[in-house]
Amino acid sequence: MSTLSATHSPHARIKWLASATSEAWLQQAIAHPIELLIDHAHCERKAAGSALQLMFRYLCEPGLAEALSPLVREELEHFELVLGILKSRKRYLEPLPAPPYGSALARKIRSVEPGRMLDSFLVAGLIEARSHERMSLLAVNSPDKELANLYRELLASEARHFGVYWTLAQERFQKHIIDSRLIELADIEAEILSDLHPEPRMHS
Amino acid sequence: MSTLSATHSPHARIKWLASATSEAWLQQAIAHPIELLIDHAHCERKAAGSALQLMFRYLCEPGLAEALSPLVREELEHFELVLGILKSRKRYLEPLPAPPYGSALARKIRSVEPGRMLDSFLVAGLIEARSHERMSLLAVNSPDKELANLYRELLASEARHFGVYWTLAQERFQKHIIDSRLIELADIEAEILSDLHPEPRMHS
Repeated sequence: MSTLSATHSPHARIKWLASATSEAWLQQAIAHPIELLIDHAHCERKAAGSALQLMFRYLCEPGLAEALSPLVREELEHFELVLGILKSRKRYLEPLPAPPYGSALARKIRSVEPGRMLDSFLVAGLIEARSHERMSLLAVNSPDKELANLYRELLASEARHFGVYWTLAQERFQKHIIDSRLIELADIEAEILSDLHPEPRMHS
Repeated sequence: MSTLSATHSPHARIKWLASATSEAWLQQAIAHPIELLIDHAHCERKAAGSALQLMFRYLCEPGLAEALSPLVREELEHFELVLGILKSRKRYLEPLPAPPYGSALARKIRSVEPGRMLDSFLVAGLIEARSHERMSLLAVNSPDKELANLYRELLASEARHFGVYWTLAQERFQKHIIDSRLIELADIEAEILSDLHPEPRMHS
């Protein structure tokens, strides 16, 4: 029987997510703290890369670069923070095969505009929302206090980053269009995570 | 007859560059301050993109991410600064066809390691060095005081960024190998700029 509810932080239920993270993920994550930390460093740099790519794709779209450039900088600040902790523990950015999560979500981004832009915002936002939810769990449940503090420090930014993508969508699309597509994508996101990936990852 | 020497800043001669910027470039740049500013915004975001790409390519190379991630953040800070000035003048990131400079230099990067890594550092460093030289000229010669101040503020970073790439090279390659390749690439860089590109650009 799941004990997740007992150890959940109040932040752990994010209203945009279609399902809560399983107890199985939390146990897997806590059992492999350094592998998860390395994966988290990769997540931060990939989030920076994706946001920069999005900024380059829609470069002449007013308001986009102003929102995304500071977000990229913040992702990289977090990347550097995590890298510092890894180095203090005599580890580095070892290559880790990615779980299917990111690429499976990316395949759901429509290829034709304006759907492509909306989906790009919503997928990026959902990943931030899931990271926020899982970091909340780690902040409360990680037995390693330095890592618990790290995740506590970072999780507010993940929620803020969701907000950046949400605002970018709201400024450009009608509410009912955003809402119905978000429900579809959130269901897909939950479905991807419904089978626990065997390797411990932030999005396993 | 050139009057460049009279208006040169003492910073304008960078020892890594094989030639000094022409008076013709300076006159072209000063005659088109906003076009140059938009191009400069593009240069900052492209420098961020290239550094991030380099970081991703050599991700497991110790010491590289620590050097390049803060550099990417600084390029983006400058990008945001330039974008702010553009917006205050009711302009934005209009698309500007790039001059041949960047792609011509990129073609000189060898495709096989370790030459590829060394060339990537040196080409990125030379572009920073040229930007530093030209911003020094603009800081001294620009009749638009806000823009003169902007370039004055930014030029020290360009020199520092050259230093980042130089240090990355020195940590990994023998001095005589770096020096001989830098001379070759600096000659190529000067050759590319020897014919003034008809459109006003930071690297026309």
